[in-house]
Amino acid sequence: MLSVAIVGPGLVGDALIKMITNYASLANAKSLPICVRGVINSKKMLVASSPEELVSSNYKQLLDSDRAEPADISQFIDNLKKVTQPSQTVIVDCTSNENIANSYALWLEQGFNVTTPNKKAFSGPLSYYNQLRALQANTSPILLHEATVGAGLPVLSTLSNLVASGDHIKKIEGILSGTLSFLFAEFSSGSTTGPSFSDTVKVAKANGFTEPDPRDDLNGMDVARKATILARLSGANIEISDLKLQNIVPEPLLQLETSDEFMNQLPEFDAHFAELNAKALANNAVLRYVASLDFENKSYSVELKEFPKSHPFSGLSAGDNIISFTTEYFPNPLTIMGAGAGAQVTSYGIFCDILKIAENSRN
Amino acid sequence: MLSVAIVGPGLVGDALIKMITNYASLANAKSLPICVRGVINSKKMLVASSPEELVSSNYKQLLDSDRAEPADISQFIDNLKKVTQPSQTVIVDCTSNENIANSYALWLEQGFNVTTPNKKAFSGPLSYYNQLRALQANTSPILLHEATVGAGLPVLSTLSNLVASGDHIKKIEGILSGTLSFLFAEFSSGSTTGPSFSDTVKVAKANGFTEPDPRDDLNGMDVARKATILARLSGANIEISDLKLQNIVPEPLLQLETSDEFMNQLPEFDAHFAELNAKALANNAVLRYVASLDFENKSYSVELKEFPKSHPFSGLSAGDNIISFTTEYFPNPLTIMGAGAGAQVTSYGIFCDILKIAENSRN
Ligand SMILES: NC(=O)c1ccc[n+]([C@@H]2O[C@H](COP(=O)([O-])OP(=O)(O)OC[C@H]3O[C@@H](n4cnc5c(N)ncnc54)[C@H](OP(=O)(O)O)[C@@H]3O)[C@@H](O)[C@H]2O)c1
Ligand SMILES: NC(=O)c1ccc[n+]([C@@H]2O[C@H](COP(=O)([O-])OP(=O)(O)OC[C@H]3O[C@@H](n4cnc5c(N)ncnc54)[C@H](OP(=O)(O)O)[C@@H]3O)[C@@H](O)[C@H]2O)c1
Repeated sequence: MLSVAIVGPGLVGDALIKMITNYASLANAKSLPICVRGVINSKKMLVASSPEELVSSNYKQLLDSDRAEPADISQFIDNLKKVTQPSQTVIVDCTSNENIANSYALWLEQGFNVTTPNKKAFSGPLSYYNQLRALQANTSPILLHEATVGAGLPVLSTLSNLVASGDHIKKIEGILSGTLSFLFAEFSSGSTTGPSFSDTVKVAKANGFTEPDPRDDLNGMDVARKATILARLSGANIEISDLKLQNIVPEPLLQLETSDEFMNQLPEFDAHFAELNAKALANNAVLRYVASLDFENKSYSVELKEFPKSHPFSGLSAGDNIISFTTEYFPNPLTIMGAGAGAQVTSYGIFCDILKIAENSRN
Repeated sequence: MLSVAIVGPGLVGDALIKMITNYASLANAKSLPICVRGVINSKKMLVASSPEELVSSNYKQLLDSDRAEPADISQFIDNLKKVTQPSQTVIVDCTSNENIANSYALWLEQGFNVTTPNKKAFSGPLSYYNQLRALQANTSPILLHEATVGAGLPVLSTLSNLVASGDHIKKIEGILSGTLSFLFAEFSSGSTTGPSFSDTVKVAKANGFTEPDPRDDLNGMDVARKATILARLSGANIEISDLKLQNIVPEPLLQLETSDEFMNQLPEFDAHFAELNAKALANNAVLRYVASLDFENKSYSVELKEFPKSHPFSGLSAGDNIISFTTEYFPNPLTIMGAGAGAQVTSYGIFCDILKIAENSRN
């Protein structure tokens, strides 16, 4: 029985608890049992007294009940150790918290397996990243983070297998932000008659496809984090600052205090974006915001680029992710596409890691 | 140390021995060692006296030397058991032999792990398939066959994870034959000025992209086998005969004795194929030979279909495979594309299975 401890039962964590609860009813679970054994948010925490206690239908009530204790992450880990062996346990960080990310080393040292959709530890300082890699270079425990890039798409597992088999990764290129995928598929769809850039952003924001402040998508940082993760897994020991990063927020809007001010002033720059789009169209191309990692020339960028209309990136469904690996085995790239954001597919990506850990830790 | 025994060191088996030999020199191999421990072809066999003995540079000489014995598959298995534990060993069937495929049950019963690119066992009688599934429903040993569909593309691992996580597979659609991918990308490329169908086949045959008798590609059997494998992994207990299968060899050419006769008479049917192509073009579409598995309507087919020019299947590079999974998590399908045939990518697909078995069997 693999025990799962959820740190941060928010959108993704909640979907994951549902998935594990449902999994327990499937045939496969008999030979490979998995249970939720503990949950902690920023206020309360609970370690279950049995593998059956914590399920999707009751964990919220339990966290609200007097069975729960005030949140204390080190106490949570200690409580877990009283009921499960670390090697038979996986801690899932479903927060975006940096302190939690900085705890992975401690958890791995104690023998816990770890998986997370939180990009911080893998795109932050190289020194911490290398420490984490070293901690699981030996046989166990296992640290995985499939959902940090492409959510539930089999991106990192594929890249890890290519690297492990001795393939040479020549180039990785991808549309890695669901938000920027949506914005440019809508705005630069191959004609000049589409909506203005500011209107596209407005619609996306209204539909909840952007961060509360859309500049947090348009600055490219989320894509840069993912690009850093891909580069490092491919063997390039880079810091995020080694990437050439294009922030597409118009310079004069960078310093505005509020998201509302930004949205109000964005239309003033519609002509700028329309011009970029027209230039692309003149080349029979469209605009896409992509991460490009060229390992042969050691050139790594995250920027707005033109792609010919016939290119797979140009035809991508609005909001989807796409990623291409050009390698020695795959000179014509191995390409994966589909939804790359959303609570359910993200929790599915985490669940794939959990399955792998369950298979590895059974005996 | 995981020991690999290669049955059939042909094109794929040879590439796999190269990959494992190269792997041994990589950093990863220290924590997850893998070696080739035995090789058998239809004439000779050899089980190495040490994990280091059999490498890509010498196995052919060794098979030719008097260290080798006459081939005898049961003796080979017995010899293996003298030097390795079955649970720490994976037998890789790189033949297309049916008797070998029928031995998997025996091997699994003895505790050996098995992986193969050979489609026979998984697309043959359902009774044998179910027997194999039952044999590895318990914890170990492991039976994998990633390379049977899409070669090195992460097709079956992705499908298995989706199913294991409780996702509902609604539809699978794919171009699963490298040969038919090439033929129709060249023949039906969106214009009427392309080469004739018979010329396209001639070029493909001359370049070694077809079976010696191209009817063995055009009859759709290879795609039907792959479709059966996908359907079964998705939970549909079908026999290959349950598929609606379109054999695109013109009826009058089916009974011709030789491949040469077939090639000589194929031009007489160019008008037939040109008409299909023109009909597609009139719909702004192209022709692609696809497997379509519609689980909601229980309708399974392998046939020539029209796809709009904007569809990802239409833009696929000639020769590549593409496969789309439409599921509850991925209403917009999760799609994977890239080379789906060739000795190196096929051996890479097998190697992914071997890595998984190595991770699972270490302790
Ligand atoms: N949503 C997506 O589509 C998606 C896709 C890919 C990756 N991700 C990543 O997945 C992670 C979770 O995303 P989300 O959308 O689920 O976020 P969310 O809904 O904001 O949930 C965050 C959770 O973390 C908890 N938390 C915050 N700080 C904590 C702490 N110090 N200790 C314990 N719990 C703490 C919060 O608890 P309180 O409620 O008590 O504050 C909340 O339960 C993030 O790293 C995100 O980048 C998300
Ligand atoms: N090539 C591809 O692109 C590709 C792609 C996907 C899947 N596959 C599958 O991979 C498998 C191997 O393909 P391949 O192209 O490597 O074939 P191949 O070059 O013809 O090699 C077949 C090997 O099997 C051996 N063999 C045949 N019968 C045997 C027996 N009874 N006992 C022991 N060894 C036996 C042959 O030995 P002898 O030389 O002594 O006859 C030869 O070494 C097939 O199942 C194929 O469908 C291939």
